[in-house]
Amino acid sequence: VGPEALSLWKSESTFTSFGVFFLQMGWGDLGAFGEPSKETPNLDQMASEGMLFLDFYTANPLCSPSRAALLTGRLPVRNGFYTTNAHARNAYTPQDIVGGIADSELLLPELLKKAGYINKIIGKWHLGHRPQFHPLKHGFDEWFGSPNCHFGPFDNRALPNIPVYRDWEMIGRYYEDFKIDRKTGEANLTQIYLQEALDFISKQQGSQQPFFLYWAIDATHAPVYASKQFLGTSQRGLYGDAVREIDDSIGKILKHLQKLGISEKTFVFFTSDNGAALVSAPKQGGSNGRFLCGKQTTFEGGMREPAIAWWPGHIPAGGVSHQLGSVMDLFTTSLSLAGLQPPSDRQIDGIDLLPAILQGKLIDRPIFYYRGNEMMAVRVGLYKAHYWTWSNSWEEYSKGIDFCPGQNVSGVTTHTLEEHTTLPLLFHLGMDPGEKYPLSFPSDEYQRAMERISVVVQQHKATMVPGEPQLNVCDKAVMNWSPPGCEKLGKCLKPPKSDPKKCFWPH
Amino acid sequence: VGPEALSLWKSESTFTSFGVFFLQMGWGDLGAFGEPSKETPNLDQMASEGMLFLDFYTANPLCSPSRAALLTGRLPVRNGFYTTNAHARNAYTPQDIVGGIADSELLLPELLKKAGYINKIIGKWHLGHRPQFHPLKHGFDEWFGSPNCHFGPFDNRALPNIPVYRDWEMIGRYYEDFKIDRKTGEANLTQIYLQEALDFISKQQGSQQPFFLYWAIDATHAPVYASKQFLGTSQRGLYGDAVREIDDSIGKILKHLQKLGISEKTFVFFTSDNGAALVSAPKQGGSNGRFLCGKQTTFEGGMREPAIAWWPGHIPAGGVSHQLGSVMDLFTTSLSLAGLQPPSDRQIDGIDLLPAILQGKLIDRPIFYYRGNEMMAVRVGLYKAHYWTWSNSWEEYSKGIDFCPGQNVSGVTTHTLEEHTTLPLLFHLGMDPGEKYPLSFPSDEYQRAMERISVVVQQHKATMVPGEPQLNVCDKAVMNWSPPGCEKLGKCLKPPKSDPKKCFWPH
Repeated sequence: VGPEALSLWKSESTFTSFGVFFLQMGWGDLGAFGEPSKETPNLDQMASEGMLFLDFYTANPLCSPSRAALLTGRLPVRNGFYTTNAHARNAYTPQDIVGGIADSELLLPELLKKAGYINKIIGKWHLGHRPQFHPLKHGFDEWFGSPNCHFGPFDNRALPNIPVYRDWEMIGRYYEDFKIDRKTGEANLTQIYLQEALDFISKQQGSQQPFFLYWAIDATHAPVYASKQFLGTSQRGLYGDAVREIDDSIGKILKHLQKLGISEKTFVFFTSDNGAALVSAPKQGGSNGRFLCGKQTTFEGGMREPAIAWWPGHIPAGGVSHQLGSVMDLFTTSLSLAGLQPPSDRQIDGIDLLPAILQGKLIDRPIFYYRGNEMMAVRVGLYKAHYWTWSNSWEEYSKGIDFCPGQNVSGVTTHTLEEHTTLPLLFHLGMDPGEKYPLSFPSDEYQRAMERISVVVQQHKATMVPGEPQLNVCDKAVMNWSPPGCEKLGKCLKPPKSDPKKCFWPH
Repeated sequence: VGPEALSLWKSESTFTSFGVFFLQMGWGDLGAFGEPSKETPNLDQMASEGMLFLDFYTANPLCSPSRAALLTGRLPVRNGFYTTNAHARNAYTPQDIVGGIADSELLLPELLKKAGYINKIIGKWHLGHRPQFHPLKHGFDEWFGSPNCHFGPFDNRALPNIPVYRDWEMIGRYYEDFKIDRKTGEANLTQIYLQEALDFISKQQGSQQPFFLYWAIDATHAPVYASKQFLGTSQRGLYGDAVREIDDSIGKILKHLQKLGISEKTFVFFTSDNGAALVSAPKQGGSNGRFLCGKQTTFEGGMREPAIAWWPGHIPAGGVSHQLGSVMDLFTTSLSLAGLQPPSDRQIDGIDLLPAILQGKLIDRPIFYYRGNEMMAVRVGLYKAHYWTWSNSWEEYSKGIDFCPGQNVSGVTTHTLEEHTTLPLLFHLGMDPGEKYPLSFPSDEYQRAMERISVVVQQHKATMVPGEPQLNVCDKAVMNWSPPGCEKLGKCLKPPKSDPKKCFWPH
């Protein structure tokens, strides 16, 4: 969970640039989406110069699967970023995960290479940290960042600290060479990531080569951090400080594009990999506005994301779209911008959003809400049907882990995994974006809506071929003990004996 | 509860015009405040051309006291718009209320007359419907609208239908002469109120006389209504249709001011008399965004209001203010605009907001949250201390009356009136606008904040002189049986025998 940015350009075509910021921020964290402190002037301006997507979704309420979906254009259940260890469980890529992105998956940067793009990822990769999953083996040309989330500090005995890579090799570790002060929340990582982005853009502009920049920062992911000059500047505490720094950085990147004269050649998209982690609130968790619950759940708070498309001279300023969109669409849309076709040998879930962005069209398509191997819910038009509901288990909840703090909708935010497949819970998201008022089962409205939704779900299930699950096996031996380059730094650690077992996914 | 608009102008001075729209809409109902359907383009544009107030409050979570506060600049506990029948009970002016606005209160239009203003109220008055409380006896020169809310239809036996007045006399009754279709929600009242506003402005512009227009419409108050051309146009159902019509009307009024060339002479303010009535949700209730609970409560959802100041050429476009503001400030600010001083013989709670609006200053002042005769909470800076908490009684709650649907914060949204006067519940509204995480009592932060707040509260209580309560006595004989003018219409009804008793206020 954290931001990502894609940016590409090609000087000889109309579609000369492309970018995505991708990060752990909730729908309600932006001033443009009603955050009461209104501390995101740059993102708000990006929205007023571009197009605001109000009905935009991630493909999964957790970071790794969501990122895999963005880069493959496919649901995690297809691209392998899920688990079958238990039913409907969220899974990601912690340090001991054995799996990662399969070679058989085609990632956006791999495809863009065919159109001459140079591709860079800045920030958190999160698609596996073992050598075969390295981003430079999956289409990226450059990388600055880490394979996993910046948890820590660890003792380098039970757990190694997370490495930071430049391209093929590690150049240090979090908490050691890249400081994060857990007491004050101070870390200058966002500033480093910002500078990396500015330098990359400058360099590519000089070479006239089209580029794809994926700016996947994670300052708003617990443990939240901000640079010294932003600490204490927000009404919202440390989390707000981090948001302000990200907002400021995005403003600087956009201004940099303008200064270089390539803003009209650069398509930029801002969105998030999952809803705000309310479990970390109030000190380290953001806001999903009035949507229900947050990260880890398939309620709107877990999966509806802030989203802004920016492309001066092409996207009408101040536009607003109700197109149902998904992070997976960024895959297909980017290919379209680059003049490429999506792969035809596999199911692609993303659609090309350009008709919605450039011509204001509304494309009829459903949104599927998955948790692990289960389709929990589906949205068709303004209706959302829950086939399964779950927040978390009573056991976890009793430990104080609450994905829906202060919110309790009886029979909806359930603490057991509840099946509603024969009679789904149905909500009208226009009248009831907070999913508080299930429609009456015998009502005409329920019947009419479910008739339409049932067809969509049947078709989806009938054609669904799940991929090989990548997030089933964990092994302490595969942790970041000795990443490539560690020997040059004297930072190689001795791995324990291999002991693969089923990963435990509580949620 | 419903919108109100003040507009005044004076062609020979810089401060030539003044206006307020005042209505029952929640903080979260505007696109500019994050409503996911984003269906208020005119209000959003008003905000982008003017100044958005993010920390603006009503003086009471109920309609009548809030309106009395706006027009007197004084807390309801001072101006008499409260009850002592029971502790901390909300009260308003139903048809059987005996009381109303006292002659001893000085209303904004009375004072503006001294500066040559002509004053009009369009819409719901709600400060008493007996002859002595008539708005034209309290400074208004013209009135089009009703004394009470548009409840009904009634049978004219147990209860008379609410009259609609033009100036001194009634010209018909709701549901009889002014149709509201309870089945379809169709009523063209907002269009009538709009035309009244446009005509009044045109007329005054012709006469060059400064004016004050108080546009207090109530389409978003249950029973919610909209005109035919707006029915079914919103993603949000009938409530959204009503919001769209109000938004459209406000856009037309602002454009009319511009067309007449007097927009730079007209100060316009948009706000609401209380938070959205979540008890009417989802079909007839609006949104308070991520704030806690709604109308009837002293949580943020009940009292934080959408607020926009608009005055082209004077207020910087796109401004945002964190000034703690109150509807009572509109009294003092209006007087300031008209070059008048507020009365010096009584306590005025409103402050002059012009330094905040025109110079971006932040004036340090507290916000008091009253429910009836009790100060429930106070906000100082970003901290809010609850001295009492209550949503509603278990008895009412068990009947399905829920002021906080889907929300339950243990020990906060209490169903008994809970005293916390010795150890107030404290929230940091920047980090926790949803009032979900009370600060720890032994923390340094709690101690520091409460030291400051305690001084403010002591001072407030020490100088508080409550007014004579006006909302204690109810009598069916005083209902709108035979309003002035009824004889001309053959619409006089025979009142029952007088039987005054204590009004029953359940909340």
